[in-house]
Amino acid sequence: MGVHQYFKSLSDLEQIIRCPGKFKFQEHSVASHSFKVTKIAQFLGTVEEKCGQNVNWRILYEKALNHDYPELFTGDIKTPVKYASKELKKLFSDVEEEMTRKFVEKEFPSEFQAIYLERLKEGKDETLEGRILSVADKIDLLYESFGEIQKDNPEPLFLEIFEEALRTILLFQEMNCVKYFLKHILTDMLNERFTEHDELAGIAKRILEE
Amino acid sequence: MGVHQYFKSLSDLEQIIRCPGKFKFQEHSVASHSFKVTKIAQFLGTVEEKCGQNVNWRILYEKALNHDYPELFTGDIKTPVKYASKELKKLFSDVEEEMTRKFVEKEFPSEFQAIYLERLKEGKDETLEGRILSVADKIDLLYESFGEIQKDNPEPLFLEIFEEALRTILLFQEMNCVKYFLKHILTDMLNERFTEHDELAGIAKRILEE
Amino acid sequence: MGVHQYFKSLSDLEQIIRCPGKFKFQEHSVASHSFKVTKIAQFLGTVEEKCGQNVNWRILYEKALNHDYPELFTGDIKTPVKYASKELKKLFSDVEEEMTRKFVEKEFPSEFQAIYLERLKEGKDETLEGRILSVADKIDLLYESFGEIQKDNPEPLFLEIFEEALRTILLFQEMNCVKYFLKHILTDMLNERFTEHDELAGIAKRILEE
Amino acid sequence: MGVHQYFKSLSDLEQIIRCPGKFKFQEHSVASHSFKVTKIAQFLGTVEEKCGQNVNWRILYEKALNHDYPELFTGDIKTPVKYASKELKKLFSDVEEEMTRKFVEKEFPSEFQAIYLERLKEGKDETLEGRILSVADKIDLLYESFGEIQKDNPEPLFLEIFEEALRTILLFQEMNCVKYFLKHILTDMLNERFTEHDELAGIAKRILEE
Amino acid sequence: MGVHQYFKSLSDLEQIIRCPGKFKFQEHSVASHSFKVTKIAQFLGTVEEKCGQNVNWRILYEKALNHDYPELFTGDIKTPVKYASKELKKLFSDVEEEMTRKFVEKEFPSEFQAIYLERLKEGKDETLEGRILSVADKIDLLYESFGEIQKDNPEPLFLEIFEEALRTILLFQEMNCVKYFLKHILTDMLNERFTEHDELAGIAKRILEE
Amino acid sequence: MGVHQYFKSLSDLEQIIRCPGKFKFQEHSVASHSFKVTKIAQFLGTVEEKCGQNVNWRILYEKALNHDYPELFTGDIKTPVKYASKELKKLFSDVEEEMTRKFVEKEFPSEFQAIYLERLKEGKDETLEGRILSVADKIDLLYESFGEIQKDNPEPLFLEIFEEALRTILLFQEMNCVKYFLKHILTDMLNERFTEHDELAGIAKRILEE
Repeated sequence: MGVHQYFKSLSDLEQIIRCPGKFKFQEHSVASHSFKVTKIAQFLGTVEEKCGQNVNWRILYEKALNHDYPELFTGDIKTPVKYASKELKKLFSDVEEEMTRKFVEKEFPSEFQAIYLERLKEGKDETLEGRILSVADKIDLLYESFGEIQKDNPEPLFLEIFEEALRTILLFQEMNCVKYFLKHILTDMLNERFTEHDELAGIAKRILEE
Repeated sequence: MGVHQYFKSLSDLEQIIRCPGKFKFQEHSVASHSFKVTKIAQFLGTVEEKCGQNVNWRILYEKALNHDYPELFTGDIKTPVKYASKELKKLFSDVEEEMTRKFVEKEFPSEFQAIYLERLKEGKDETLEGRILSVADKIDLLYESFGEIQKDNPEPLFLEIFEEALRTILLFQEMNCVKYFLKHILTDMLNERFTEHDELAGIAKRILEE
Repeated sequence: MGVHQYFKSLSDLEQIIRCPGKFKFQEHSVASHSFKVTKIAQFLGTVEEKCGQNVNWRILYEKALNHDYPELFTGDIKTPVKYASKELKKLFSDVEEEMTRKFVEKEFPSEFQAIYLERLKEGKDETLEGRILSVADKIDLLYESFGEIQKDNPEPLFLEIFEEALRTILLFQEMNCVKYFLKHILTDMLNERFTEHDELAGIAKRILEE
Repeated sequence: MGVHQYFKSLSDLEQIIRCPGKFKFQEHSVASHSFKVTKIAQFLGTVEEKCGQNVNWRILYEKALNHDYPELFTGDIKTPVKYASKELKKLFSDVEEEMTRKFVEKEFPSEFQAIYLERLKEGKDETLEGRILSVADKIDLLYESFGEIQKDNPEPLFLEIFEEALRTILLFQEMNCVKYFLKHILTDMLNERFTEHDELAGIAKRILEE
Repeated sequence: MGVHQYFKSLSDLEQIIRCPGKFKFQEHSVASHSFKVTKIAQFLGTVEEKCGQNVNWRILYEKALNHDYPELFTGDIKTPVKYASKELKKLFSDVEEEMTRKFVEKEFPSEFQAIYLERLKEGKDETLEGRILSVADKIDLLYESFGEIQKDNPEPLFLEIFEEALRTILLFQEMNCVKYFLKHILTDMLNERFTEHDELAGIAKRILEE
Repeated sequence: MGVHQYFKSLSDLEQIIRCPGKFKFQEHSVASHSFKVTKIAQFLGTVEEKCGQNVNWRILYEKALNHDYPELFTGDIKTPVKYASKELKKLFSDVEEEMTRKFVEKEFPSEFQAIYLERLKEGKDETLEGRILSVADKIDLLYESFGEIQKDNPEPLFLEIFEEALRTILLFQEMNCVKYFLKHILTDMLNERFTEHDELAGIAKRILEE
């Protein structure tokens, strides 16, 4: 009942651990993830701007900062569940939206409700900023899974996540920032010294060549 | 692809933390919770037997042991989400069942599939054993929330969980084991030395008197 | 002084970490271990039943569920100490039994004492259910050490534990469930992708051939 | 050696724990703190805009997002040390700036260096956005210390931090967002249910009345 | 097989957590405990010296530093077990000594064996240094339990430990350092601000007056 | 205000984690590190004594025990910062000394101030005991970095720390204890079974041959 509840809720995002139910050497909270996605989006936006695109920075930062806030209401549900069926996925979005709406109407004074409803809605749309968010979200996921693979986590799930994240990034390969990422950043990542190097580089090479 | 995967999956239940997204002094995994629920069900069954009820122990232990195994596929989704709408709740059960069925068919040799499909289905039915499971599950939840309240966790959610758990137990108040619990165990719990004592005892008294 | 103390004590088993004094990537509590042993015993019992053995399920579940409860009184004492001498081992069992008896007499109302004394006594006897417990206990230990070895824990102790657990399982190799385990489950475990693969497979092969 | 190193460094900020050397019930990383400060700054900026101020959102988000990045090079040095002497404080800023400059010149391609030098410099200046950052940084610190006090952390340091943070916020009391914070948010915070309530409310009252 | 193993074993003492099987807000390792006991013994020795006693500092430091090293072989066995019977206690000491002897003979070159056998033997004898060790060991235990009580740990065990530790210290009340401790240090401890203050001060007062 | 504050401060050293800001498989506190350095110094002193050197044991133990106590005031500042410039390093020492002096004068009764000022001053001087401390401090750092490298921590920093620690030890290679360490202990360390073995042995060989 007030902005105080909203400020307190930010700390709850530090308590939601991503990828629950699997052993991880290094855990990441939704709060940390949101920070990193926003920083990555900042870099990607900078690349787009250098290439002549017009970036709406306010929108970009807001999309990135808020993109996982609704996990406050739902937790980090396992991806396979969320997308188990089209029908469920649709229902899930509806529930998230509904809970977000209720939260905003309960906690925010009326003069702030419209702006927060706008800020907390799904940000991955077809705008330049929405696409940068989609890419930034997957780049952080790529780094999370890379961190586990590099530390020799034997769980094959992390290779699958790496692969899925890279495939999603490639859906946006016409973007300048994705081109930059693939050429300059992914290359450095795959050149890192580590045990499963061959397997990982093989997966990446295969996906890129497809 | 095989029972080895099933055995490995047991350890994943140690990685799912109950009540994600809230600060807790003491965390509990789904594996630990399942152990405690089975031990509590053992005691409740013993009370029922003493009172002349016929307990099918094999069924009781299997229900208790397996009752949260499907969280392996879905994670510990926040209860408000799960029950946000009747429609969603129904869909959720369907998804859980479907994923469980797929897991059993993929990992278990065919001669074990029927028995594991039976073991992993929803256990909270109208049988004596199903009702004991419902009560045992809520007693452990009562203890989890009591533990936080007793340690002065300022989050009001734990008082709400305590209240909700106690209300659900009272739905089964005609059972011998619930009568025993209310008379002998809850009393001792509420007599424990702690700061918020008055508030907690007040809630319990109010619910019991309703 | 009452069943409330017994219910509370279940949570203390979540605080006893197995294999103290050695760095572990993934820690396991006695509560989680008890859950996994009971689930493994369930599978082993199922195999025995399929092979025509008569399994007393109530007894099997009770043995598995309760087999480490006395660690509540003693902690997880290092195995080398426990078995440092025949004399000490005998004394240790005596002390565990005595402390368990005192606990039951102090916390349980008299009408439940006999049944809990029976439930909490050493379960690894010569019955089918006792032998299944012995095997299930070692299979979970095998998985715990395998988990560390697969994550490249450099501590040689985990290879020793793996070896000792496998040797103990082999003492029961005439059992149907052990035959099934060796043929179908251990094989899959040893085929997992990991660094020390050769060394581990070598150890297992050597033990099996002896 | 590339933007890859910069992306990897974001995860190092998850490893720097704020307020080292004191027992805390809940730990906060620099990454989480940066996320929360940016979210708080977003709200404060919204209040300023509603009151007719012209907010440069791009600048505000960048200041908030990056304000503790240089802790990557220095760690979270205890505040009393940092400000032990004017001379040391000045030297410290110089060192931070120098290390940031070296990092940018080493890791970023030349076309990005100017923009990142700008982004990573000290953000707490006299502009509206710089002052919002100063306030948002202290509000999160206030919440961190409040969280410990509310959980009955006996360490008096957290009362001192609460006091110091509130005093700093009051230095900006002519700002619309600070007026809003004091009137609507702080009030709700101090009305929360908790043990040390009287003492904390007393401190806040005394500071506000001075 | 060599001093390298001895150096590595020091890190294992960081993995043994004191008081296993009970929820604690703050955990302490045997390594940290040994450090604190040695620092406390240093202060107590200083008091004795000021009062004219002749302190053998080398002996005092060695006793304090090494006094829990044999827990490397046995773990932190719960005190009630260790002392469950005179017979068991005696056997336990014998086992610890035997395992220490074997370790020294296996890992240390022969020229160092005598000195390390001397260093690792039980240090709590009737000498001034042995008595200082007994007191320092209990003072750290007093602080550990005080820390839990002050943070409102509801487990009554910590009040019992506090009481037992204080009683043991009083057995040495003729020592100058104990007199100093009771007069100057315990008083300040009991004057600390905290919730259970009355109960704790009551216990201490009662013990001191007995 | 009293020795009670000093005793309490010892526990704060358990809360300062060494090498902040980098992912580590195993964390080490300043308290544990101090314990291990003192134990290592004990062994090195023993070697010196065997070789005919006259060791002042009281001084040696006090230097080792107290060498990182001032981190209580400053935290574990990243080494590159501390030594970023000669000027800063000097200022840093001054600040540490000043804060230590203030602490001693505030917390210790006047009769203990002189002895504690002496005990808490920088111990790494040119005396035999000062040089043993320098070596022991780096040996523990060598073991800390070795532990990470052996567990396949992909962060190159740990190879750098290993290299830097070994180089510093070699500065004292004329000492008997360093000769013993290089010949008997380092050899065993480098013969340990682990993945990055070749790379690590290569670094050590190169440094030793320089």
